[in-house]
Amino acid sequence: MATQHALPVTRADNFAGWYQAVVGEADLAEESGVRGCMIMRPWGYGIWQRMQELLDRRIRESGHENCYFPIFIPLSFIAKEAEHVEGFAKEMAIVTHHRLKKIDGVLQPDPDAKLEEPLIVRPTSETVIGAAFSRWIRSHRDLPLLLNQWANVVRWEMRPRLFLRTAEFLWQEGHTAHATHDEALEHTLRMLEVYRSFSEDALAMPVITGEKPPHERFPGAESTFSIEAMMQDGKALQAGTAHYLGTHFARAQNIRYQSERGDLEFAHTTSWGVSTRLVGGVVMTHGDDDGLRLPPVIAPRQVVLVPILRDKPEDGAVVQYCEELAREINQGTAFGEPIRAAVDRKAGRAIDKRWSHIKRGVPIVCEVGARDMAASAVTMIRRDRARNGERIESKTLQRNELAQTAGALLTEIQATLHAEAHARLAANISSQFGTFDDLESYFKDSTDTDAFRGWAQVAWAKPEGAALEAVDAKLKALKLTIRNAPLQQESAEGRRCIFSDAPAREFVLVGRSY
Amino acid sequence: MATQHALPVTRADNFAGWYQAVVGEADLAEESGVRGCMIMRPWGYGIWQRMQELLDRRIRESGHENCYFPIFIPLSFIAKEAEHVEGFAKEMAIVTHHRLKKIDGVLQPDPDAKLEEPLIVRPTSETVIGAAFSRWIRSHRDLPLLLNQWANVVRWEMRPRLFLRTAEFLWQEGHTAHATHDEALEHTLRMLEVYRSFSEDALAMPVITGEKPPHERFPGAESTFSIEAMMQDGKALQAGTAHYLGTHFARAQNIRYQSERGDLEFAHTTSWGVSTRLVGGVVMTHGDDDGLRLPPVIAPRQVVLVPILRDKPEDGAVVQYCEELAREINQGTAFGEPIRAAVDRKAGRAIDKRWSHIKRGVPIVCEVGARDMAASAVTMIRRDRARNGERIESKTLQRNELAQTAGALLTEIQATLHAEAHARLAANISSQFGTFDDLESYFKDSTDTDAFRGWAQVAWAKPEGAALEAVDAKLKALKLTIRNAPLQQESAEGRRCIFSDAPAREFVLVGRSY
Repeated sequence: MATQHALPVTRADNFAGWYQAVVGEADLAEESGVRGCMIMRPWGYGIWQRMQELLDRRIRESGHENCYFPIFIPLSFIAKEAEHVEGFAKEMAIVTHHRLKKIDGVLQPDPDAKLEEPLIVRPTSETVIGAAFSRWIRSHRDLPLLLNQWANVVRWEMRPRLFLRTAEFLWQEGHTAHATHDEALEHTLRMLEVYRSFSEDALAMPVITGEKPPHERFPGAESTFSIEAMMQDGKALQAGTAHYLGTHFARAQNIRYQSERGDLEFAHTTSWGVSTRLVGGVVMTHGDDDGLRLPPVIAPRQVVLVPILRDKPEDGAVVQYCEELAREINQGTAFGEPIRAAVDRKAGRAIDKRWSHIKRGVPIVCEVGARDMAASAVTMIRRDRARNGERIESKTLQRNELAQTAGALLTEIQATLHAEAHARLAANISSQFGTFDDLESYFKDSTDTDAFRGWAQVAWAKPEGAALEAVDAKLKALKLTIRNAPLQQESAEGRRCIFSDAPAREFVLVGRSY
Repeated sequence: MATQHALPVTRADNFAGWYQAVVGEADLAEESGVRGCMIMRPWGYGIWQRMQELLDRRIRESGHENCYFPIFIPLSFIAKEAEHVEGFAKEMAIVTHHRLKKIDGVLQPDPDAKLEEPLIVRPTSETVIGAAFSRWIRSHRDLPLLLNQWANVVRWEMRPRLFLRTAEFLWQEGHTAHATHDEALEHTLRMLEVYRSFSEDALAMPVITGEKPPHERFPGAESTFSIEAMMQDGKALQAGTAHYLGTHFARAQNIRYQSERGDLEFAHTTSWGVSTRLVGGVVMTHGDDDGLRLPPVIAPRQVVLVPILRDKPEDGAVVQYCEELAREINQGTAFGEPIRAAVDRKAGRAIDKRWSHIKRGVPIVCEVGARDMAASAVTMIRRDRARNGERIESKTLQRNELAQTAGALLTEIQATLHAEAHARLAANISSQFGTFDDLESYFKDSTDTDAFRGWAQVAWAKPEGAALEAVDAKLKALKLTIRNAPLQQESAEGRRCIFSDAPAREFVLVGRSY
């Protein structure tokens, strides 16, 4: 008989179905009834708020200031950009009217309230922020200008998926201007490194940093860098990007400064962002067949105590025992912050509550009954290793022991989750492909399946133009894309390009992706 | 000769012009080029982020969870509401298309990408949150449901003013559902009290809590409560509102629960919000003719050290001295948090930097030159009392003294600002009006001027229907409105209504407002 799990579907059976089940059962998010837009429920939003808090600190500590730009971008700003940017995406929400009116009993856009110029709901803010930069930047003394904003953006999506691809999503977008190419490029890589360390340290999600190939660049960028994470189905998730925009946007928007020598020069700009997509990445990196497993650093609650109540007079004492224990635990610290422990006092059966916290991925779930209380003890489940075969593995601890060791335990759980994910990533990048045929036979049999294949690291000649398009088409036929060219890589000298057999210039990672 | 001030216009000369000057010179916000939408610059956004952090803590501590609902609301949701709500406002941004297309060389909404149902950019989220409540609430065990979200909203504004009235603004909106009338009303008042204490303690902005008259209620509310603050021109700023919505929205959206007795009952809902308007309130409460004065609790930086540099070899040592002093100060605490001191290392003359921080309202501005350093000293300006007549008043302190007393000094500055504002509010509510003629003659001569009049507290009979409309019209002719009926007030027994001479039922505050 198969092991029973808390979710109705397992990763092995149906990874996409499993993902949806986790998102639903862990109370992360749900469909809103508005096409492509999700409702982030408290537990899901709480995870995002933790991410935001921790990343905001890193962004500020690296010298950026937060600000806020309008959600609406006049069509003319976008049109100006479109002239300069080929491959400009046009799927956007467009505001055309500013009033509703009841006509023949039906509420509708009032024809008399049509905007002279349509407004676009921002898909990203380069244009509106660039226009401000051109007003604010006069002299080399104004540079570098380092800004960031936390905002919602909208991109019309034909096949939305909760967190991974939604019409509206929340993100931060950093925008900076610099005097020189070198400074701007260096800053782009610095922010990529902030994303890498945040992803590894806070999300326990190892990533590969690298440069995207030309056809995967942000429209208008000189170079685009990404962090790529491996999900448990072997697919890649692009978890964050950083763009060096050259003087491209500066030319379109006239962002110029007077140099020390007195010349008028175009500024070099960058932009970089991560979004609520990261929540989906955490689910697919750490979840198991019982639901989510949350890295303690980003868990809104790290320890939950469930009192086992029996409608008996001693119930009050059990709750009080839990409250005191939570207070004791909260006096400790983990990761340099006070521990976040709470008592689940909601109505309901203890066993249901236990499972709800396991599904939500609370790192340490404790149950406390009258017997535990009498023994000054507590029964504890470590979410990262909840199972021993079919059985849920719990452990009885003395109350003092839990309060004293909770911080260390959380640190250990964080490390365990990272180590597991890191081992998976390290073990599943194959590099035995000498020719495209090798690559094809490795991926071909799984073209239409969800079989785990991981990524391939292949040597290539870094072609451009038509040759690059041909490579892209060959990969697309296998449902593959080039993820990035890792920044950390061995020399490709002496290797041949698997696409053209020409001398290779570098290695790139190839895989299926979200 | 008149005293020279840092701003080009004084409060006495032109209050509206002064307000704009502060917002501009303190780098709080600016026009964006998008009608009615502002750009919040780093210092202005930093103040908002502090407010958000502090209020978020209070909202969570009072049992609410944060979540996030879509920015778009289908027209049908709004139409449903409009059927139930008279006085429903219709000025909203309406999305009608989801793609741009170049037609005859012009980028425009693609006629083939017209939405089947228009989407409204949320002006507030009762409808979309109510729809979720009706899915989530089944039983009395699901109540109370206490949610909050931080979001941007859009209301088309014909006469926008930075922070005070903008098409897009940032806010929090709390939405709760309860089993009974009493519980929901009590919760509404509880959140009003959270706003009052936040406003007084964090913003040093005293407010009067009270109930709005029927014609000023939120459309669909049973009762609307507000906090009203008095600006330095004597006008009222409605700084936050809390609504008890009865079962009105529950009926429109079918939010029902099974009671303990097994009956299906409508839930009682509430909503409440404060917005970036508070930043404008802080400006008009505390600013002076040299710019903003910030309550230390919400100042992004509480102490700024300006090194006086002379392009001489000792410059490096002066900067280092400042950095060390900032570190020492930051080891102290104020208001239960680490102090936020920073060194201004930007390029530029020390005197310009001093003035920029004075205009921004930094509570303690220090200057440090080589001579100060040699004497282990620092020259300090307290922003709350920067002037002694025409002169800027500075004081020389020993370095240790500043580090040791900074926390106490910040506490004193916070208290001073609150006391000043409180004295103004207390002194400027007149209650000597026995008849409407009295009121008219008090306000009439200033109908078209900005003369300071403060508020009037008058007795009234709390009329309804046509009688209320008549009162409203009489007041409007004097550019007055009823602000609220203070929760804390003496009995009106034995008094006559100044509008109708009928027996009075309560006192209301009357004034001009933003």
